[in-house]
Amino acid sequence: MSEKNNKSTSRISEIKAKRKLEISVDDIINGIKSNDKTSIGKAITLVESNNINHQNAAQELIERCLSINTSSIRIGITGVPGVGKSTFIETLGTNLIALKKKVAVLAIDPTSIKNKGSILGDKTRMQQLSRNNNAFIRPSPAGESLGGVARKTREAIIICEAAGFDVVLIETVGVGQSEVAVHGMVDFFLVLKLSGAGDELQGIKRGILELADAVVINKADGAQISAANLAVKEFTRALHLYPPKENGWKTKVLSCSAFMNIGVDEIWNMIDTYIKGNTASGYLTKKRNQQNKYWLIQTIENRLLENFYENKKVKKELEKQLKIVSMGQTSPFKAAEKLLKLAKKT
Amino acid sequence: MSEKNNKSTSRISEIKAKRKLEISVDDIINGIKSNDKTSIGKAITLVESNNINHQNAAQELIERCLSINTSSIRIGITGVPGVGKSTFIETLGTNLIALKKKVAVLAIDPTSIKNKGSILGDKTRMQQLSRNNNAFIRPSPAGESLGGVARKTREAIIICEAAGFDVVLIETVGVGQSEVAVHGMVDFFLVLKLSGAGDELQGIKRGILELADAVVINKADGAQISAANLAVKEFTRALHLYPPKENGWKTKVLSCSAFMNIGVDEIWNMIDTYIKGNTASGYLTKKRNQQNKYWLIQTIENRLLENFYENKKVKKELEKQLKIVSMGQTSPFKAAEKLLKLAKKT
Repeated sequence: MSEKNNKSTSRISEIKAKRKLEISVDDIINGIKSNDKTSIGKAITLVESNNINHQNAAQELIERCLSINTSSIRIGITGVPGVGKSTFIETLGTNLIALKKKVAVLAIDPTSIKNKGSILGDKTRMQQLSRNNNAFIRPSPAGESLGGVARKTREAIIICEAAGFDVVLIETVGVGQSEVAVHGMVDFFLVLKLSGAGDELQGIKRGILELADAVVINKADGAQISAANLAVKEFTRALHLYPPKENGWKTKVLSCSAFMNIGVDEIWNMIDTYIKGNTASGYLTKKRNQQNKYWLIQTIENRLLENFYENKKVKKELEKQLKIVSMGQTSPFKAAEKLLKLAKKT
Repeated sequence: MSEKNNKSTSRISEIKAKRKLEISVDDIINGIKSNDKTSIGKAITLVESNNINHQNAAQELIERCLSINTSSIRIGITGVPGVGKSTFIETLGTNLIALKKKVAVLAIDPTSIKNKGSILGDKTRMQQLSRNNNAFIRPSPAGESLGGVARKTREAIIICEAAGFDVVLIETVGVGQSEVAVHGMVDFFLVLKLSGAGDELQGIKRGILELADAVVINKADGAQISAANLAVKEFTRALHLYPPKENGWKTKVLSCSAFMNIGVDEIWNMIDTYIKGNTASGYLTKKRNQQNKYWLIQTIENRLLENFYENKKVKKELEKQLKIVSMGQTSPFKAAEKLLKLAKKT
């Protein structure tokens, strides 16, 4: 009798737990469909969670979001600290909302990985935009590997698209590998720069010009206008040496003052022209398909390495083998074999 | 009776097989110790073999080679096809032999991975050197991944050092990722260049100047001398912008005519000075220790990925998932989970 009671109690709690989970994913999906900010926020928190139950729910949620037919424009924005990224996003976002578009802002911040902080943690950075009903701003998930942050941001994009945002802006700082990650998840990649003292190309990161669909010289106002014009010329000349991209696009160079809202509409017009042309040609669909494949491969490879390095026995033995190997007492290859065998067993 | 006979026959063949293997590794080691070319060649063939029995013997061989106390100088040499790498190595090698040094030449050729050919396959490229008793030339193992070729070259270096070669030259062509691999296994990294038409820096590969310990302008003879002098100036100026390396070394720029044997001795004197100074300071030991750690990590990561991608069931499912994912029908992350689970089971 008591056993039977126990059984039925546990059955009931099982059903309750299951229902609770089902209900909550359903609730969140319904909230997302009606562009409810709280639901969108909850959904992103779910994909950011490392709890195994949350992860299962998150996967269900993402699959259901993918089945919602929506279209959005994904724009990556990068630039070193101080270039005016938040002012630029604030102005561009506000202009887009005036054009009746809904705007989401996400971030990938490699510095947050080290500092467990976030470039977008402080919402006061985009005061006007964050108060607007048609905008959604989400800081970068902190304290994770770049692979983890990239995955979570990709899923946050899917959630924002299911919620009906027309434009998703993905911000990153111009340090580390995060630019490559952001470039691999957007339709258009924009690099913000400041004009300098005639040596514009001196400090530019290798490879970044190859990624850029547009270079924008910000803070082109007041005394800076002539320096900005010079920078536009220099970048145009430098970019002339690069071959056009796969779709025939030549990287554009423009200037603006995000603070004064001068030239930002022209930048949007350029992006809009790009998106329309490359949607018509089918190039954007092809690019997104390739990006999806890229993320499948990236996820697999990150996870294979994570599983290995997070194995506690492996961790301990690796420390030991690194010492032995560095002294030249055994070959790196034999030590690797030993560690791989250990990982397979445990 | 017949069973007993069978048993003892199999026992005998087991012992024979074991003895044969033991004897052959012993034989090879003895041959290596006396700098016997045939034994050195056999040893490298053993580490290049993908046969599992050979691999076990190869690991034993490498461990025994590591226990032989020798010292050598490892020099990496890179440059695009046509820059005169083989002529340079031929001249430098012949000069070194005149200084009573034994010289081994190995190669990492990323083009051989695609073409199953090899830059050093044709020994006629270094006719003088290949005929010399104090030289040993080995082409790049063909038809492998860069990771595989790099591992085998690293082990070939260990064999050459056990055989008492004083200088090991590792050649690679200036394309692909092989320069990073070679840089990670040498004491000194030399980049060969040709003088151009005043735009020396235009075509230089990103990052290559950061790897170089010296840039050498080859073919500085006849009508090319003034262009070569100009190139030396341009590279010196460009390198001036780079910070010095960890050991305080500023990348040197020299010119030579490998064909006429002009300036090659000066290059050797520079390398010799570098090696002596950095041996005395302990920097080279530290660098080799770091390189050993690097190769341990590289080997582990290559092998983890290889094991995954070479799993036949995974291969088939991956093809399927790539299609589904590229159409946006499932998330890359869910597909990755599925594939990782499959790999774990099989």
